[in-house]
Amino acid sequence: MSESAWQLLGDYLRETCLFGSIQSTLYWDQNTVMPSQGAAWRGEQLSLLAKHLHERKTSNQFQTLLQAAKEEFLVHVNSNKCDNDFLRDRSRNIELLEQDFYRQKKLDSSLVVQLAKAKAEGYNLWQQAKLTNDFNCFSPALKKLIGLRQEEANQLSEDRSCWETLAQPFEPDLSVKRLNQLFTPLREKLPELLKELVTLKTDEKSEWDLDIPSQEILCEQLLDNWKRNKNIIATARSPHPFSITLGPNDFRITTRIVKGQPLSSFLATAHEWGHSLYEQGLPSTAHQWFAWPLGQATSMGVHESQSLFWENKVARSFAFSKSFWTNFQKAGAPISSAVDLWKAMNPMIPGLNRVEADELSYGLHILIRTDLEIALLEQGLDVDDLPFEWNKKYKELLGLSPQNDTQGCLQDVHWSEGMFGYFPSYLLGHLISAQLTVSMEKDLGPIEDLIKTNQIVELIEWLRKNVHHYGRSLNAEELVKTVTGEELSPNYFIEYIIKKTQNLINI
Amino acid sequence: MSESAWQLLGDYLRETCLFGSIQSTLYWDQNTVMPSQGAAWRGEQLSLLAKHLHERKTSNQFQTLLQAAKEEFLVHVNSNKCDNDFLRDRSRNIELLEQDFYRQKKLDSSLVVQLAKAKAEGYNLWQQAKLTNDFNCFSPALKKLIGLRQEEANQLSEDRSCWETLAQPFEPDLSVKRLNQLFTPLREKLPELLKELVTLKTDEKSEWDLDIPSQEILCEQLLDNWKRNKNIIATARSPHPFSITLGPNDFRITTRIVKGQPLSSFLATAHEWGHSLYEQGLPSTAHQWFAWPLGQATSMGVHESQSLFWENKVARSFAFSKSFWTNFQKAGAPISSAVDLWKAMNPMIPGLNRVEADELSYGLHILIRTDLEIALLEQGLDVDDLPFEWNKKYKELLGLSPQNDTQGCLQDVHWSEGMFGYFPSYLLGHLISAQLTVSMEKDLGPIEDLIKTNQIVELIEWLRKNVHHYGRSLNAEELVKTVTGEELSPNYFIEYIIKKTQNLINI
Repeated sequence: MSESAWQLLGDYLRETCLFGSIQSTLYWDQNTVMPSQGAAWRGEQLSLLAKHLHERKTSNQFQTLLQAAKEEFLVHVNSNKCDNDFLRDRSRNIELLEQDFYRQKKLDSSLVVQLAKAKAEGYNLWQQAKLTNDFNCFSPALKKLIGLRQEEANQLSEDRSCWETLAQPFEPDLSVKRLNQLFTPLREKLPELLKELVTLKTDEKSEWDLDIPSQEILCEQLLDNWKRNKNIIATARSPHPFSITLGPNDFRITTRIVKGQPLSSFLATAHEWGHSLYEQGLPSTAHQWFAWPLGQATSMGVHESQSLFWENKVARSFAFSKSFWTNFQKAGAPISSAVDLWKAMNPMIPGLNRVEADELSYGLHILIRTDLEIALLEQGLDVDDLPFEWNKKYKELLGLSPQNDTQGCLQDVHWSEGMFGYFPSYLLGHLISAQLTVSMEKDLGPIEDLIKTNQIVELIEWLRKNVHHYGRSLNAEELVKTVTGEELSPNYFIEYIIKKTQNLINI
Repeated sequence: MSESAWQLLGDYLRETCLFGSIQSTLYWDQNTVMPSQGAAWRGEQLSLLAKHLHERKTSNQFQTLLQAAKEEFLVHVNSNKCDNDFLRDRSRNIELLEQDFYRQKKLDSSLVVQLAKAKAEGYNLWQQAKLTNDFNCFSPALKKLIGLRQEEANQLSEDRSCWETLAQPFEPDLSVKRLNQLFTPLREKLPELLKELVTLKTDEKSEWDLDIPSQEILCEQLLDNWKRNKNIIATARSPHPFSITLGPNDFRITTRIVKGQPLSSFLATAHEWGHSLYEQGLPSTAHQWFAWPLGQATSMGVHESQSLFWENKVARSFAFSKSFWTNFQKAGAPISSAVDLWKAMNPMIPGLNRVEADELSYGLHILIRTDLEIALLEQGLDVDDLPFEWNKKYKELLGLSPQNDTQGCLQDVHWSEGMFGYFPSYLLGHLISAQLTVSMEKDLGPIEDLIKTNQIVELIEWLRKNVHHYGRSLNAEELVKTVTGEELSPNYFIEYIIKKTQNLINI
């Protein structure tokens, strides 16, 4: 059986993938160690690679290789000589490659250039606007970005609405209708729960801090506790925490130290560990798959479900505090019991800031953004009315009013780069995580029992076996259905968050 | 005046340079933070870039651009409209570009591939051989490498001997005849001085150590003391210390911690600082020049002269110990006076190891290697006789005999990768450093006076103004002549080392 067309395509993808991972390495370096004045040259290196990668991904050579591989594949199908797994995997790889290729190919190159410029401008103006609390300085750039991205959706001409089209790269196959089904129950339930909690006044926010070396030691202890393999995972500090994969056996995790928030670096480490663990469990660890789409993460929602599992279900659990609080005591924190640490890990105070939000109010931040970005793209919401609408929704859902736009609609970076359709992934991650955890507990028993006795490997193995290895063979909803036997539902998250708030109230 | 051909060539060089600096960034990452199992994929990334860079550096497009720029330049010359500096710089750039281009172009691509393979094999076998003290396991690979590099010199067919041809990339225009003139006086004088020192028995090698955080703090204090600009210089740890330039304003320095050698990381930092300072002072800081050969370092000898200046003339000076010893005391070292630190910095104990050698015996290690590599390449020395010849020379010049080949001819990595012609640069660096320092002191007065009062900026400014900015416009010897008004001579180094040993004896 001749494999040549498939192999040639694989060779091509592999080289694209090598260049892509070089780009990621430069990004890692830029955010962890590069001296500030290296930025201009780094920008030129990254532009050069981006140009090179775009050429490779839209080249006639690639199209020809893809077509030949597809024809070869059809010969296999007709020959009836190959088993079903083989055919299913190849078929899905071709489908995804064609989808990605034509999505790139459909766009006018002039639009791509305009968008790149508008994103850079938008980001710069947003930084200024945020710093000076001047929304008007940013609004023309946002209008321009919305126009260009509407044009992008138009050129892609998919059988979807504009917002849906732009959300596809983050959540394949997601629709606004489905999103409403999932989010509507939260829109009712979360504010109710929030009121209960506020009435009971749990807001004893701690006032202590830890020095940088102590925080670094605690992060290392956490990763050691979770059996991190130093031969494949490196850590560093960066202005914003992230996890990134630089090769089949090269995973990186960062955290950041925030003054006055001694648990921030710790919880960011737990979060990024979850992202990295998902990438480690993808079928990409074999070189064979690293270059193929099937070996990639399926959606940002699934990615978030994995990071949130380790941050919220594990690190923020009472069982974890029981097993770990003495490390904080030794590091000099004013923590003298598991309860102390657990309460410090779970402040549950609604605020205006998404990134600092607790598990309960987090969802409300996302609902507001999701509504508003759909309104901006599809319902004619005027950019100039955005601050007013933002503040109105915060009052309605969280009972809070931003003092200014810096605390309000200027807080997040996403829209400044024209990134629409991403926000729901964060909340979908909470839902997916909750539902997957119920299945996990059916198999393994209560995870708190495993966490208490540090049987972390059991958790990792279950996630590897049941969740990670599917890659892009299933989309997020198909994955949930396959693992849990049920459609994705917001109920598991609601049950989880009710129980958690009750426990916190009753402690 | 149309500049198009020159600008097109510049654009091409700039893109080559961007790819080259990407390669360097991957190298930096590999040696500072990459987890060990990332090595295989990193190897593939580097091979891909190396292939891409080789293609760019030998392409017909490059040749055409170079030719057009040269023709355009000749029009300028004939027009008599441009000033001499302009013409001299352009002429030199063209000369260097053509030289580098035809050096690459003359080689058969099959030889290039064979060499790359033989280097990788040689390096692996050398590692094994060194570990197991088995020279025979490495000798066939060394024979092969010598044959291939002789063939390389043959294909380059320069008007030079084989060893000279291979030494050109490190020391442009160097000849064996000139090397003998410079090194012969050292061959006589250094062993004499060594005997005096050994008779006087100064070998009170210290037995203390410092923990890793303390060593890191001392290295940071050193760099702060020397006015390091954190916005352009980043530091890290790596298995072997190095300095590397990743962009016009992006410089990196590493050091390493060696157990039982508490000053190793500190002196390595001083050494790498000197390399980096030279790169920072090159005319490369303007983007315009970064891509052009004139903006590059002129030779490894000059590079070493700069690192050795900061390591030996500054950090190992008595004045420096006076100003810095309390930092060591505070770090917990058993140092209670400037003399204590100064003696610890200057052990002057002849040994079998080049890397650990003091300033006096260092040159002898180099003489031995230089003799032997010329003998291997040009005088028919059989590889199988190398261990015997090595040991004989150590007995003659240092009065010491290695116990085995691991301590002897297997100690250095250079030959395992077929790198011949590099070793003399280390000793040339000592000579150049000594001679430049005499000129510096004519201008600034005794540098010990400046070091004592921490007027480091004076030293930096003098080096920038008098040494660094020439780049490749002058070769090493021309540079020395320009700066000092005299031909390069070994006498300055001999005077310096006599004075230093006397001071150490008399303390």
